[in-house]
Amino acid sequence: MTASSASQDLPRAPKTGGSVVISVDAMGGDRGPSAVVAGMAESAEKNPEIRFIVHGPEAELTRLIGRRKTLADRCEIRHAEGVVTMEDKPSQVVRKGAGSSMWSTVESVRLGEAQAAVSCGNTGALMALSMLRLRKLPGVNRPAIACLWPSRNPQGFNIMLDVGADIRADAHDLLQYAQMGASYARNGLDLATPRIGLLNVGTEEHKGRTELRQADELIRAAAADGNFSYVGFVEGGDLPSARVDVIVTDGFTGNIALKTGEGTAKLVGDFLKDAFSNSIMSKFAALLAMTSLKRLQKRIDPRRVNGGIFLGLNGTVIKSHGSADATGVSAAIKLAFTLSKSGFQDRLAARVAQIAPAPTEDSGAAR
Amino acid sequence: MTASSASQDLPRAPKTGGSVVISVDAMGGDRGPSAVVAGMAESAEKNPEIRFIVHGPEAELTRLIGRRKTLADRCEIRHAEGVVTMEDKPSQVVRKGAGSSMWSTVESVRLGEAQAAVSCGNTGALMALSMLRLRKLPGVNRPAIACLWPSRNPQGFNIMLDVGADIRADAHDLLQYAQMGASYARNGLDLATPRIGLLNVGTEEHKGRTELRQADELIRAAAADGNFSYVGFVEGGDLPSARVDVIVTDGFTGNIALKTGEGTAKLVGDFLKDAFSNSIMSKFAALLAMTSLKRLQKRIDPRRVNGGIFLGLNGTVIKSHGSADATGVSAAIKLAFTLSKSGFQDRLAARVAQIAPAPTEDSGAAR
Repeated sequence: MTASSASQDLPRAPKTGGSVVISVDAMGGDRGPSAVVAGMAESAEKNPEIRFIVHGPEAELTRLIGRRKTLADRCEIRHAEGVVTMEDKPSQVVRKGAGSSMWSTVESVRLGEAQAAVSCGNTGALMALSMLRLRKLPGVNRPAIACLWPSRNPQGFNIMLDVGADIRADAHDLLQYAQMGASYARNGLDLATPRIGLLNVGTEEHKGRTELRQADELIRAAAADGNFSYVGFVEGGDLPSARVDVIVTDGFTGNIALKTGEGTAKLVGDFLKDAFSNSIMSKFAALLAMTSLKRLQKRIDPRRVNGGIFLGLNGTVIKSHGSADATGVSAAIKLAFTLSKSGFQDRLAARVAQIAPAPTEDSGAAR
Repeated sequence: MTASSASQDLPRAPKTGGSVVISVDAMGGDRGPSAVVAGMAESAEKNPEIRFIVHGPEAELTRLIGRRKTLADRCEIRHAEGVVTMEDKPSQVVRKGAGSSMWSTVESVRLGEAQAAVSCGNTGALMALSMLRLRKLPGVNRPAIACLWPSRNPQGFNIMLDVGADIRADAHDLLQYAQMGASYARNGLDLATPRIGLLNVGTEEHKGRTELRQADELIRAAAADGNFSYVGFVEGGDLPSARVDVIVTDGFTGNIALKTGEGTAKLVGDFLKDAFSNSIMSKFAALLAMTSLKRLQKRIDPRRVNGGIFLGLNGTVIKSHGSADATGVSAAIKLAFTLSKSGFQDRLAARVAQIAPAPTEDSGAAR
């Protein structure tokens, strides 16, 4: 089959009977639309229930999708000329981004055509667009970005939020992060009663900033009704630990912790490669150790945990890593699918509605 | 030689001609005084110029030191009954800690008997005692703890501060951290013109908290006179990078980054062990890969970077890791020695004196 004949055969609407539709932004990632389409094909192959609405330049997408048999009959292309780059400022994108693939991707979720959106593009712009078009869930002050973190837990991952939606968070925001993180852990990681920890510099109650001591009390009091258990303060070293499933923090601290963890894992990995390429003997050892090294790589592969999720909006948006390859994109799509199937968005909205809005005197005290 | 005959031979005063005297707290570490004395012996063997004043229960120390030939003639024991534990609150230690080995250790630096102090004990208590007895350098508002971080730089390490002396820092404090960190890099890592970065969630000037934008301007303006170069904002992923030598941040963020990095490195290390013990084949591979794995371990061994230094006091105090073994204690002592030989304390004081105190209107705006 040639590319052109395939593209002519391509149907223009996804069949939605029993299936989940994911809205995918083909543009804005470091590896361009071919990596994104490759990731879609990987997902489609593994999961017959997934269908896509994919956004970007029609001619290019038609060509790329035409090459993938598994995507035939399961993709709708939405033409969008504009591309949001990594350098674009969120405020500009909000004003001028209406023709972009990113805008169009979010729009499909807003209109209810798709259950969730996935984009590899500029995080700040994606959050700004999502806030503008989807709006915050009633009662949510600050939406958050939650990420997965490799851990010693049976599920293999812990959740951390916020990792960069907002550089501030007061005590009531942190309580909402706990509730939203717990809901994500129940639906995304299938944990009945997730254990929540609050990130601090010490594990004792008298330590740390005022808003953390207040949040500690609020989260403790909300645990029973919120269907989670609260383990109290945790430290940076606990992020991969088995004593907690969800780590709550503000977006400044969370973003620094996330990037520090990624940077450290990469450093150790590079040092490992150096060590094994040091001599002929060590190269031979590496050959024999290949299976073991691959097993390690799989456990800490950042592509497996690809997909930061935006929580607190009227719709599910997944931010894939900018440098994601097919495997990374596929992991992000899988996450979008799992959450859509579980009815996560409605459950999250119900959870957030449970929390009484912050009393005025409280929010005054917290900041 | 038996322990008792050795202890009888032990002289009571160190010979200081041409040598550096380090004041060592034998107590308060997780492994007890035997690990500390073993570390002293390791240092003494490598470096004939080091002498010690060691603080703790006399009988036990006499016995432990008596067993080490290399320490004969080079140690003075100062009897101290009390021990500061990891659970003691800094405020209590300040009020009641006068009889403790930690207090006595700091006191030797205050009295000028020793050039630097080393303790494996409770960080908060050590900082509180050091502040109380040594006092802050004139002009310093918030002292800081600086740590070494394994990096891709030729020197093998980067410096980060503050990693936990104070949970707050305003713009002027961050400027002082930059100056003190640069001085530490010049004297401790032998870098003529250290490159300073300010930790933030983005590398663009418009991002991040107000005090960070102000600090960015202050540090940029101080670079030429301060004998350092300023690379601007850096992110968590840059902590081990080769584009910066010193990373400046507040003690809350720094502590979380430090523990996140340590925790991630430990996780990867444990996963690596798991991977290599998975099957007979992988165990055999591990045996062959031993040299390579040891090379890796050496590069990321936290014991090699052992020694957080307190900056901004009238005296040099090194906080060794609580769980430090002989190698870790020896690394901390080596750092104390290097800095003492370079005349670091006087140079640091001169640097800090260079910076004009924060104008009142500035510090008001920063918080």
